[in-house]
Amino acid sequence: MPKNIFPLDSAKSFTEQEKLGHNRWHPEIPPVATVKPGDTFRVDCREWFDGFMKNDDSAEDIRDAPLDKVHTLSGPFRVEGAKPGDLLVVDILDVGPIPQEEGPLAGQGWGYTGIFAKKNGGSFLTDEFPDAYKAVWDFTGQTATSRHVPGVSFTGIIHPGLMGTAPSAELLGKWNTREAALIATDPERVPPLALPPQPKDAILGGVPQGDYDRVAGEAARTAPPRENGGNQDIKNLSKGTRVFYPVFVDGANFSVGDLHFSQGDGEITFCGGIEMGGFIDFHVDVIPGGMEKYGVTENAIFMPGNVEPRYSQWLSFSGTSVTLDGEQRYLDSHLAYQRACLHAIDYLSTFGWSKEQAYLLLGAAPIEGRFSGVVDIPNACATVYLPTEIFDIDIRPGAGDVPKIDPGIGAPRASLA
Amino acid sequence: MPKNIFPLDSAKSFTEQEKLGHNRWHPEIPPVATVKPGDTFRVDCREWFDGFMKNDDSAEDIRDAPLDKVHTLSGPFRVEGAKPGDLLVVDILDVGPIPQEEGPLAGQGWGYTGIFAKKNGGSFLTDEFPDAYKAVWDFTGQTATSRHVPGVSFTGIIHPGLMGTAPSAELLGKWNTREAALIATDPERVPPLALPPQPKDAILGGVPQGDYDRVAGEAARTAPPRENGGNQDIKNLSKGTRVFYPVFVDGANFSVGDLHFSQGDGEITFCGGIEMGGFIDFHVDVIPGGMEKYGVTENAIFMPGNVEPRYSQWLSFSGTSVTLDGEQRYLDSHLAYQRACLHAIDYLSTFGWSKEQAYLLLGAAPIEGRFSGVVDIPNACATVYLPTEIFDIDIRPGAGDVPKIDPGIGAPRASLA
Amino acid sequence: MPKNIFPLDSAKSFTEQEKLGHNRWHPEIPPVATVKPGDTFRVDCREWFDGFMKNDDSAEDIRDAPLDKVHTLSGPFRVEGAKPGDLLVVDILDVGPIPQEEGPLAGQGWGYTGIFAKKNGGSFLTDEFPDAYKAVWDFTGQTATSRHVPGVSFTGIIHPGLMGTAPSAELLGKWNTREAALIATDPERVPPLALPPQPKDAILGGVPQGDYDRVAGEAARTAPPRENGGNQDIKNLSKGTRVFYPVFVDGANFSVGDLHFSQGDGEITFCGGIEMGGFIDFHVDVIPGGMEKYGVTENAIFMPGNVEPRYSQWLSFSGTSVTLDGEQRYLDSHLAYQRACLHAIDYLSTFGWSKEQAYLLLGAAPIEGRFSGVVDIPNACATVYLPTEIFDIDIRPGAGDVPKIDPGIGAPRASLA
Amino acid sequence: MPKNIFPLDSAKSFTEQEKLGHNRWHPEIPPVATVKPGDTFRVDCREWFDGFMKNDDSAEDIRDAPLDKVHTLSGPFRVEGAKPGDLLVVDILDVGPIPQEEGPLAGQGWGYTGIFAKKNGGSFLTDEFPDAYKAVWDFTGQTATSRHVPGVSFTGIIHPGLMGTAPSAELLGKWNTREAALIATDPERVPPLALPPQPKDAILGGVPQGDYDRVAGEAARTAPPRENGGNQDIKNLSKGTRVFYPVFVDGANFSVGDLHFSQGDGEITFCGGIEMGGFIDFHVDVIPGGMEKYGVTENAIFMPGNVEPRYSQWLSFSGTSVTLDGEQRYLDSHLAYQRACLHAIDYLSTFGWSKEQAYLLLGAAPIEGRFSGVVDIPNACATVYLPTEIFDIDIRPGAGDVPKIDPGIGAPRASLA
Repeated sequence: MPKNIFPLDSAKSFTEQEKLGHNRWHPEIPPVATVKPGDTFRVDCREWFDGFMKNDDSAEDIRDAPLDKVHTLSGPFRVEGAKPGDLLVVDILDVGPIPQEEGPLAGQGWGYTGIFAKKNGGSFLTDEFPDAYKAVWDFTGQTATSRHVPGVSFTGIIHPGLMGTAPSAELLGKWNTREAALIATDPERVPPLALPPQPKDAILGGVPQGDYDRVAGEAARTAPPRENGGNQDIKNLSKGTRVFYPVFVDGANFSVGDLHFSQGDGEITFCGGIEMGGFIDFHVDVIPGGMEKYGVTENAIFMPGNVEPRYSQWLSFSGTSVTLDGEQRYLDSHLAYQRACLHAIDYLSTFGWSKEQAYLLLGAAPIEGRFSGVVDIPNACATVYLPTEIFDIDIRPGAGDVPKIDPGIGAPRASLA
Repeated sequence: MPKNIFPLDSAKSFTEQEKLGHNRWHPEIPPVATVKPGDTFRVDCREWFDGFMKNDDSAEDIRDAPLDKVHTLSGPFRVEGAKPGDLLVVDILDVGPIPQEEGPLAGQGWGYTGIFAKKNGGSFLTDEFPDAYKAVWDFTGQTATSRHVPGVSFTGIIHPGLMGTAPSAELLGKWNTREAALIATDPERVPPLALPPQPKDAILGGVPQGDYDRVAGEAARTAPPRENGGNQDIKNLSKGTRVFYPVFVDGANFSVGDLHFSQGDGEITFCGGIEMGGFIDFHVDVIPGGMEKYGVTENAIFMPGNVEPRYSQWLSFSGTSVTLDGEQRYLDSHLAYQRACLHAIDYLSTFGWSKEQAYLLLGAAPIEGRFSGVVDIPNACATVYLPTEIFDIDIRPGAGDVPKIDPGIGAPRASLA
Repeated sequence: MPKNIFPLDSAKSFTEQEKLGHNRWHPEIPPVATVKPGDTFRVDCREWFDGFMKNDDSAEDIRDAPLDKVHTLSGPFRVEGAKPGDLLVVDILDVGPIPQEEGPLAGQGWGYTGIFAKKNGGSFLTDEFPDAYKAVWDFTGQTATSRHVPGVSFTGIIHPGLMGTAPSAELLGKWNTREAALIATDPERVPPLALPPQPKDAILGGVPQGDYDRVAGEAARTAPPRENGGNQDIKNLSKGTRVFYPVFVDGANFSVGDLHFSQGDGEITFCGGIEMGGFIDFHVDVIPGGMEKYGVTENAIFMPGNVEPRYSQWLSFSGTSVTLDGEQRYLDSHLAYQRACLHAIDYLSTFGWSKEQAYLLLGAAPIEGRFSGVVDIPNACATVYLPTEIFDIDIRPGAGDVPKIDPGIGAPRASLA
Repeated sequence: MPKNIFPLDSAKSFTEQEKLGHNRWHPEIPPVATVKPGDTFRVDCREWFDGFMKNDDSAEDIRDAPLDKVHTLSGPFRVEGAKPGDLLVVDILDVGPIPQEEGPLAGQGWGYTGIFAKKNGGSFLTDEFPDAYKAVWDFTGQTATSRHVPGVSFTGIIHPGLMGTAPSAELLGKWNTREAALIATDPERVPPLALPPQPKDAILGGVPQGDYDRVAGEAARTAPPRENGGNQDIKNLSKGTRVFYPVFVDGANFSVGDLHFSQGDGEITFCGGIEMGGFIDFHVDVIPGGMEKYGVTENAIFMPGNVEPRYSQWLSFSGTSVTLDGEQRYLDSHLAYQRACLHAIDYLSTFGWSKEQAYLLLGAAPIEGRFSGVVDIPNACATVYLPTEIFDIDIRPGAGDVPKIDPGIGAPRASLA
């Protein structure tokens, strides 16, 4: 059974642990441990904000989220013999919340979903939901329920939001260049277009003191997914999944974090999914020369596991690339998915949930978001699928009265001045 | 059993049939038949180009596709008692190719997938594939195979690409206004941003002679999905699906066409899916006042059927919103899905398929395209899932040699001067 | 598309058709048609009682069922080149009720389930249900509903109850010998232990007049499944399935009949499933020497299709091998399944259905019956799984009141004097 | 997160633990702990033979299995307020092998499947496999592989083989009476028809010394499933399942044991499934008066969870109720399933596995066993479904050569003199 090579003590902060992780990408962050191809091992993960978020009925923590501090990553783990050009094979043997603990740290029997405020990160529907909101979810086995979103319960599709290999210096340079160019097109935008390197709050593992400032000034933020995998937030990377990552540095230097108890496609509330700390068990292997062999050079590929929660009945909503103001955009699938999600939110609100509750639900529950049509000029067509089994009431349209739920205390809200 | 209320004779063109359909949207196109809530009925559908495409080894027909002539729609069908503000309930009881016929018309035992040339419509990856390509697929029961894409066979997810209710005059006006505004931003673009009304080749059913020119000048093209449903190209609208459409005119005036034997999410080759003529059996009903009751005012909602082809093992590819040239874009899911599809195409090409063959396959096979991450600035993350069971060889990455298929005669190609 | 090589006219009886089928197994019944390996073809099938059963509210037809007349089989079809020792590969490309017809023949938009009376065939629970009962089911697309069993609707798992190859003379002799030996142990039993050859009502296709009496006296009844496949009543032999049959005579001489619109595992009411006439489309091939090659010598093997109706939530009942009278039997899975089915029937009756209605439902709906434990002396454990989605009400046990359905007119009943 | 109310120390035997469990059923075995409706809690379980079986390449331990010592059960757990006539609701929140341990105890990273010898317990196919055999399985995450059955790997469907409530004195008396009557019909049979109370090796938890001998003489063996659930060996009682048990004594007195890492339907090798120790997390509740309310008086009912391993392609084998010697039996589903399993074993042996290896595989892998036809006199038809994805080679029948696996060291065997 897997040995824990990166244990975390729930009573201590991320930087006070036996082994120090990181919250930036940089090739010079040294490995915290070395494993061999064929090894299995366990890694603990801290929730991405290192315990800043509380199990309470206020959204002030979400409003004030310290974005410079994320993501608290476990690693890097060096895989003996892995070389640039190889593919790193990562099997997720198991993943779950912090075992057998109750407490104030997300992952100790509970997790949270937040809608980030427009002035502090924003979200997929930030123009419609500019304030901060929070939902706390309780875990009973693999089932999630929330006092902030009553009337639903679902089986979590537990997964890591973020896994990846270390970039080479060259690749890191490419990231910084292209992202800086984007930021430069509108540097004052709120929310920002991208996040440049930020030395403040950087955690860089075992980078020597003398190199710290330089590395902190170069190291890439962990928010976006990139060629190394990274913060892909693919809900289907759950138990049983095999992922193949390009290797850019000797030893691959693999890291992991941002565990989610569940998530809908898109993680649309940004502070989305159901955030938690926990553990993850890996088996790793290497395909020598795999990048060229399979033409996989700038992206992860993967095979989802076969124990994903199984639902069979879905209610689906479509959207097209016309803005809420009625402006026609050209084949914009991103906009189309926003509109599909808004349609779902409007629909759910007819049953008594507030729109914020519905939005939080779509961020957290195992909804499916699909590119249905991407060529029918000028409208992309996106669709979002809600499993009907997760609702306590029958949400299917019909001839009778619309059943109503009691929205309870609602989703806590906090606005920025 | 359903009575056929819109029969088509495969030996005659679409305009020579007993009942005349239409290829434009306009509220004044009169119903060809009236049904009652609770009725079941069959409708024949002509393939969208009315037989222009051939079962041969040339892509010249795709290159020269007469885009002004599409889509040949069956209907409109008036539903007695349906009123604006209602929801029209449409059950797809069955759908399939032309029964028991062999012949030169797509749907007579075969269908086709085309990649439109950049100068004549274009496609999702038109910059990488500017020429026209074609694949002919043979049907054996619900299984599709192709001499142009050897080494694969899959169970078709048969569905209508296009269904919808007639727009009101007001809604039609809104469409024309917003699409004209988009076109005006770059009127000479190739391919075009959108398609304005085009009297040439307009088929308007029973519109009186005296109104024909006016209506033809106003009527909306059928390419895009819009508030009435329309050309959504949602592959999951297969047998057993229930769809709810907003009603904008008395009688709803429902139409259908563009049957696909199968399609991948996105219909990425444009002339995509596997195009065919065939039949579709409906049951209809009405939810009075359903638009307000359920907040469904500008989009179709639906519940997919429970006999979709079932696959359990997938190989998946991700993409982000960085262009092929390395430019960073801001949260562009459309681009991210392009990149994911290109990654899949590159991967498949290592097994011996040409990139065009791989592209045609992704357009036609039941692949899944998902919005995985839509908030992780600046990169959206899109993923495309290929069922491994559809390949004759084992396409999973591994330690051994890469198995090779024989690409056969390849996909026919035709380029525009 | 498949050509119909065995067409049936719904207005004529089975023996008045253009081609004459059979209702007994015998190697000398000559083929009605010849096909080649690789061919696809359609075959019409008559409902097993050739129209004796009516779409009415009486069970007298079930009570008086003429058991000597079944099953009306289509065939035999000779497969060119198939030789004893080969495996015949049969793909079910499609299967369904009689297309586009309404009428008095089961399969013309409706079908029936019957519980045979104990004195005329009996059923799985004949001691508890000694009388005859009937339910008529209406087909809407692939969905079945019944005025005799209100409150349920389900997607049919359409399949042929009976398919098989012709026995050799030697194999036929073996059948007759072993079944006669069984009958001899209790020749007067009601219902009988087995059915010996019965010249009365035998239909033998093209057997020459001079051979008729002899062949009729030797030919095996079609009720049981045997080494040639036969009346297996495997509900999973639905669309997309591939079956491999041992070949015992030159040409294989394949026959088919007893189509079911749906059926629960076991076909427990005997006149079970939802009986109908219809069509079936085949593709055939041959694996030379396949019997020895794969050790398949006395049974069919198969691969179910991938478009079976998909349900995800089940309520399950177990049973053990203790009789209703409390007698302990030794590892009797058959008895255990009876007890599991009785438990399900008792349970459903608390919601308002009569026990007969529940029994008919279990016979017709896509329930799963499993061998859960077969070694835990002295009790076998059998389980039956009901998909909860097929019920209009929520049948899950809970804290609140038990919802009640209106049983309507109930299931028609007829008793034998 | 669940608190462990029945912890087990892997280094100590079952009888040396902090809390003492039991291996017999008796109403007077006092609860080891009390929980309330709504509680969640963890329970450790010892493998059923308390560590007698070894991770080695000999089957002597299987041959000499001390059958009087099983099953080592955890409990009873008293549920506050539960009364006879209620239904006990048991949710399986999680279940797995012993966390984070390697060692000599089954469940510490490995498990075993045994074929019991005919002279010591026997198995489903004991006449064909009279000797003892063993396979050791290694666990990697939820995947099982075996050096004794190479060429296969599968996702375990982890579940408890045995759960149940305590019998009342009256119910216990009924069991003993009916099982004694069965034994009396052939008291010397090998293997025996049933197992009478056996004071030797009885473990009775906290039964007072003065009552021990009496209780040990009355207490029922745990081998068979009965009205209280018990050793049902239903593989589908996996994570996420909800079970409803009749309550026969105050407090319900619920017990659990016999964890399996995986099992095929039937647990056909007897020492089947993949035996292991581990943990199980429960949530419990009570439906007052539920037995009468739902007509559930003598059996457990359940709703399987929605994270069962998902397979989509199956190769299936049928069997009928004719013995290997050619004798025709009357509607014997138990025999039919034996024949179906033998057909599968014969088939697999053509690929190079020994018949014992194939038999062990069918006992351990998530195969499905179904009652397909139970009324077609005189033959029942049973079917067994093997997921093709679990095999390293393609086991589907076809035109080419039969691929061969290397059977490796084979399955260890031990015979009784």
